[in-house]
Amino acid sequence: MDKVNKEYLERLRKAMKEHGIDAVVISGTDPHQSELPPAHWRGREWLTGFWSVNGTNGTAVVTPDKALCWTDSRYFIQAEEQLKGTGFSMMKEDGPEAVDMIDWLVENVKEGATVGIDGMTFSVSTAQRIEQECGDNGIKFNPDFPQFDYIYPDRPSRPMNKLFVHDENVVGESVDSKMDRLMTEVKAELANAVLISSLDDIAWATNIRTANDIAYSPIFVSYLYVDDAQRILFIDAEKLTDEVSAHLKKYNVEVRPYDSVLEFVSSLPKERRILLDPAKTARGVYDKIGCTPVFGGAGVARLKSIKNPTMLENISIAMDKDGVALVKFFRYVEENAPSGKLTEVGLGNLLRDLRLADPSCVDESFHPIIGWNGHGAIVHYEATEETDVNIEGDGILLVDSGGQYTYGTTDITRTIAIGTPTDDQKRDFTLVLKGHIALSNAKFPEGTRGSQLDVLARQFLWADGKAYYHGTGHGVGFFINCHEGPQSIRLNDVPVRLEPGMITSNEPGLYLEDKYGMRTENLLVVENWKTTEFGPFFQFKTLTMFPYDKILLDLSIMTPEEIAWVNDYHKTVYARLSPYLNKEEKVWLEEKTSPIK
Amino acid sequence: MDKVNKEYLERLRKAMKEHGIDAVVISGTDPHQSELPPAHWRGREWLTGFWSVNGTNGTAVVTPDKALCWTDSRYFIQAEEQLKGTGFSMMKEDGPEAVDMIDWLVENVKEGATVGIDGMTFSVSTAQRIEQECGDNGIKFNPDFPQFDYIYPDRPSRPMNKLFVHDENVVGESVDSKMDRLMTEVKAELANAVLISSLDDIAWATNIRTANDIAYSPIFVSYLYVDDAQRILFIDAEKLTDEVSAHLKKYNVEVRPYDSVLEFVSSLPKERRILLDPAKTARGVYDKIGCTPVFGGAGVARLKSIKNPTMLENISIAMDKDGVALVKFFRYVEENAPSGKLTEVGLGNLLRDLRLADPSCVDESFHPIIGWNGHGAIVHYEATEETDVNIEGDGILLVDSGGQYTYGTTDITRTIAIGTPTDDQKRDFTLVLKGHIALSNAKFPEGTRGSQLDVLARQFLWADGKAYYHGTGHGVGFFINCHEGPQSIRLNDVPVRLEPGMITSNEPGLYLEDKYGMRTENLLVVENWKTTEFGPFFQFKTLTMFPYDKILLDLSIMTPEEIAWVNDYHKTVYARLSPYLNKEEKVWLEEKTSPIK
Repeated sequence: MDKVNKEYLERLRKAMKEHGIDAVVISGTDPHQSELPPAHWRGREWLTGFWSVNGTNGTAVVTPDKALCWTDSRYFIQAEEQLKGTGFSMMKEDGPEAVDMIDWLVENVKEGATVGIDGMTFSVSTAQRIEQECGDNGIKFNPDFPQFDYIYPDRPSRPMNKLFVHDENVVGESVDSKMDRLMTEVKAELANAVLISSLDDIAWATNIRTANDIAYSPIFVSYLYVDDAQRILFIDAEKLTDEVSAHLKKYNVEVRPYDSVLEFVSSLPKERRILLDPAKTARGVYDKIGCTPVFGGAGVARLKSIKNPTMLENISIAMDKDGVALVKFFRYVEENAPSGKLTEVGLGNLLRDLRLADPSCVDESFHPIIGWNGHGAIVHYEATEETDVNIEGDGILLVDSGGQYTYGTTDITRTIAIGTPTDDQKRDFTLVLKGHIALSNAKFPEGTRGSQLDVLARQFLWADGKAYYHGTGHGVGFFINCHEGPQSIRLNDVPVRLEPGMITSNEPGLYLEDKYGMRTENLLVVENWKTTEFGPFFQFKTLTMFPYDKILLDLSIMTPEEIAWVNDYHKTVYARLSPYLNKEEKVWLEEKTSPIK
Repeated sequence: MDKVNKEYLERLRKAMKEHGIDAVVISGTDPHQSELPPAHWRGREWLTGFWSVNGTNGTAVVTPDKALCWTDSRYFIQAEEQLKGTGFSMMKEDGPEAVDMIDWLVENVKEGATVGIDGMTFSVSTAQRIEQECGDNGIKFNPDFPQFDYIYPDRPSRPMNKLFVHDENVVGESVDSKMDRLMTEVKAELANAVLISSLDDIAWATNIRTANDIAYSPIFVSYLYVDDAQRILFIDAEKLTDEVSAHLKKYNVEVRPYDSVLEFVSSLPKERRILLDPAKTARGVYDKIGCTPVFGGAGVARLKSIKNPTMLENISIAMDKDGVALVKFFRYVEENAPSGKLTEVGLGNLLRDLRLADPSCVDESFHPIIGWNGHGAIVHYEATEETDVNIEGDGILLVDSGGQYTYGTTDITRTIAIGTPTDDQKRDFTLVLKGHIALSNAKFPEGTRGSQLDVLARQFLWADGKAYYHGTGHGVGFFINCHEGPQSIRLNDVPVRLEPGMITSNEPGLYLEDKYGMRTENLLVVENWKTTEFGPFFQFKTLTMFPYDKILLDLSIMTPEEIAWVNDYHKTVYARLSPYLNKEEKVWLEEKTSPIK
C-alpha cells in the first residue's frame, strides 16, 4: 500500500471542517458489530494503512493536528511499521503503556468543541460511553458524521454474494419454530418485537448462509425484524436466489432493501416495544427508532448456543470429515518434515486445500495458526511471507485450525513433535493434556458456570509453577461463527450457566517465549448425565476426532485413569475415521491410536 | 417469654401516631451492623417475641393494621411458633414463598404516607434502598424514628464490660504501625480521614479486646475516627481500665464518650474527606456528617485479613491448644458413646468446658454445631433442650466448633462414626475428604480468586452425583470474628484475590436429609510457594491440628498421594499435640494417627 494516507487524512480534515467536527473517532467495525467486517466497512484500514488481509483491530482518532490509531498488543509491531509515513501514530490499547482512548479524547478536545462518529459503525453501548464522557467534560457529540461517505470515492461496495438455504434436515429446526422460540424470548424481556443486527443471529434464525460475505464465517449482511405479525429481512436483493426467495416466502419472511431498515424503524408505532442488544445494535439505527426501545437480547444468544440433537448428529459428520483431512495432513507432515523444506505458510495452504476438498466444507473457520517452535509460543500467531520459516531439525509444531462444514463448524488444536522431543517438552505437553482430560471428564450440577470449571484445566500446570492466560473454552457456532457466546470457560467470571447442547472448546496451553507453544484443543458438548436427589447433573461429550501425539506423552506423570482415557479416546477415533481412509492411512492411524500402556 | 408483645405493639403504634409514622421498619442489628448485636439492640426480638439466646435473624414491619416479621428458612419453624399470639405474622425472606420486604412495603403503604426507621440501626446501603423505593412510589421516608427510645422502658443498657490490651507480642504489630497503614489505605481511596463503625475492624486497629460485649467474639462497642492528626475512640468510659487507658495514651488515641460521635462528625470541617463503608456505617451517623463523605473501605478489611508472621506463629499455639481439647473431647465421646447416655447438648457443654479450661481461651468462637445422624444434615443445626437427642446406636456425629484464644481464633469440623459405619457413609466421608485434600494441596498464581479454586473441593462429590450448596471457605479473624471478609471460596464469584497471610476455612460437606451430615474443616493460610517465569505462585498451609476419623475412610477410592497426604498430616498432628498429652491420651492419639496404609 502506497503512503497516500496523508492525502486521505487531508480530505478527512477538510470534511471535518465543513461539518463542524473537531475530533472524529473512527471505528474498525460495521453496522453489525462484526469481528471481521466486509471490505466496504474497512475504511479505518484504508485511511490509516494499518491493515491485513485477515483484518486488524484498531480505532482511529483524528483532530486538526493529531492522527492516532489505537490497537492491542497482538498488533504493536505491525502497526508501528505500517503507520510510518501515514501521518498516524500508534497508541496502545493494552499493556503497561496503555492509554484509554476516551480518556485521551476528553483530555485533548477543548470544552465546547465537537466529537463526531459515524453512528452506524458504533454500538449503542460504545457510543453511549463516548457521549457520556464528552458530556461530563463539556464537549459536544455528533453521532451522525459518516466520514467515509465524504472522502472514500473508490470505496468497495457491500458484498453482493449469493445466499443459499442451510438444509432444514441438517439444522433440525424450521424457521417457523425458531421464530416462535425467538418471540417467546422477546416477550420474556417484556418486548413485543425484535430487531437483530448481529449477523450470526440472523443466519441462525433464517437457516440461510452465504460463502463469501465475510471471511471464515458463512454469515451475510442484513437486518432481521420480527414481531407476532411480521418477519422482515432487510437485505440487498442481488443476494437472493430463487431457492432462497422460495424459502423466505415459505416462512412468511418479507424481503426489503437493506438500506430501508432505518426508515422502517423510524415508522414503527409508539406502542411497539422493540428489543435491541445495545452491544450489537448500531447507534445510527437506535437513533432512528420511532417506538419504545427495550435493551436486552441475551435470550437470543442463548437460543443459538444450544444445539439440538439433529445438529449434534451432523456435527459428528463434520468432525469425521475434519479428522480425515487432518490424518492426510499430519501424515504428510510426518513424512516430509525430514526434508527441511516444509514451511508454516505452505502447511497452512495444504491444510486449507485438504479441508476444502470435501464438498461440504465451505471455508476455513478461521485463519489457521501454524507455529513452529518459538512461533508456537505467540498465541495469535499468523504465518505470513515475512514471518514464515522452514520446519527444520527437531522441534514442536502447533497447529490450530478449523473448517466451516455445512454439517457444523470445527476448531481443533494439535501439537506434535518433529524428531525427538526433550523431557521438558514431554512434561509440558502432558501437563496441558492432563488439564484437557480433567475438563473433558468433569461432571457438574445444573447451574454451574464455565469459570467454575476453568481451574480443572489449569491445575496441573499451576502445580508445576506454570500458567497460561487465555480462556480455556469459548462457545462455537453451528456452521456460523467459530467464536460465539454467551457461555465461556475462563479465569474471569462470566455469569452464564452451562446448559445441555452448548458446544465449548477445551484448549489449555503453555507458551515458552522463543521456545515453543503447547496447546491441545477439542470441542465438547454439554449433555445430561443423570438426575440424583441433588438435582440434574451434566457432563461433556467430546466431539473432535483426532489422536494426540503419543511421542509427547510423559507417562510417568499420568494416572492409570488418564492413560485409559487416552486409549479409549484413541480407540473411538480409529473406529470413527478408519472407514474413510485408504490402506496406508489406516495403517498410519492404527499406529497413532494404538494403546499407550 | 410471656405474650405481652401485643401490649408492646400497641405502645409502638401509639408512638408511630405521635411521630407521624405510617409504617416502621425495625432492624435486627445495631449501629455497627453486628451479626449478633448486644442485648441493648435486640429490641426487635423483645418486640416480636421471636428470639433465641444466640440471636435470630429478622426484620419487622409494623403499620396501623399489620405487624409482620421477616426471617430466613433457618428460622421458619421457630418463628412461626414463637410469633403465635404476639400480633405478628411471619414472612419468608427466602425459599419459594419469599416476599421481598421492600416490595411489600411499597405495595402496602399509601402514596404520601411516611415510612420510618431508626437510622442508627440501618446501614447507609440498606436505608438507601428503602428510601429509593419509597421515593419512586411517592412514599415519604423518615430515617429518624428511634422507636425503642419511646416504647422500651426496661431496655438493657449498652454492655459496660472491661477492656483489655491484646498483647503486642502476640499481635506482632503496634497500633502506630496499623494506623499508618490504615491511613495509607484511606488516602488510596482519595480520602483524608476515616470513621470505622465495624467492631472487628476497631478491635484490629486498636489491639484491644473484651470478653463479653458480644457473644463469641471479643470485640467491643465503639467507633474509631482517624486522620493524620487525630485518633479518637468513641467509647463508654466505664469500659476502660488503667492498662487500656495507658495503652491508648501511648498511641495517642484520644477517648471520647460513645454518644458524642454524632456531634463530632457533624462538626468536621468541609474539606475533610471522610471514608465510610456504606455497608457498615449507620445511616444515622451518615446523616450527621458535616464534611465530605467518601464511600469505600475495602482496603481496611484487606489489611485485617492478612495475618503477619507473628500472628501465624501464635495461631499455631492456639491450634495446639484446640487440638488438645479435642483429643480429650473425642476420647471421651468414644469411651462413653456405648452407654447411649451422651446428648448433643451435653457434649456441647463438655466441649466448651474443655476449651475454656485453657486460660488463653476467652470464649467459643461460635455456638457449636453438634449433630447426631439426621441433625448433622441440618447445616446450621443448634442443639437445644427441645431438639436434643441421645447418641444411641451406630451413626455419624458431626462436630463443628471453635475457640477464641488470645493466640488466635479456631474453627474446626470433624465427623466421626459411632459404632460401625456403612459403606455409603464411608464413601461419602471419603469423597468429602478428597475435596478437602485437593483444596489443601492447591498451588495457584498470584491474582487467583477463591471462587476459582472452589471446584477443587466439590469435584469428587459432583462426579458421584452429589453436592453441597454452602461456601467452601470463609475468612477467619485473629482473635476477632470467626467469619470475616473480604476473601471467600464459594460457588458465586467474589472479586477478591487470595493473598499470602489470609486465613480461610476449607470445609466441604455432604448432607443427606434425615440421615447424616458429613463435613471436614481445617483452617488454612495462604503462603508464598515460589516465583517462576510465570510470576509468583501461592499455596496453602494447614493450621488446624486434629486427625480425621480413619474408620470412615474408603481406601479403595483414594489415590496413593491422598493416602500419603493423610499419613503426613496425621504424623504432624501427633508430633504437635503429643507433648501436651498424658500417657493415655498419647496412646489414643498414636492409634488415631497411625498410618492408614
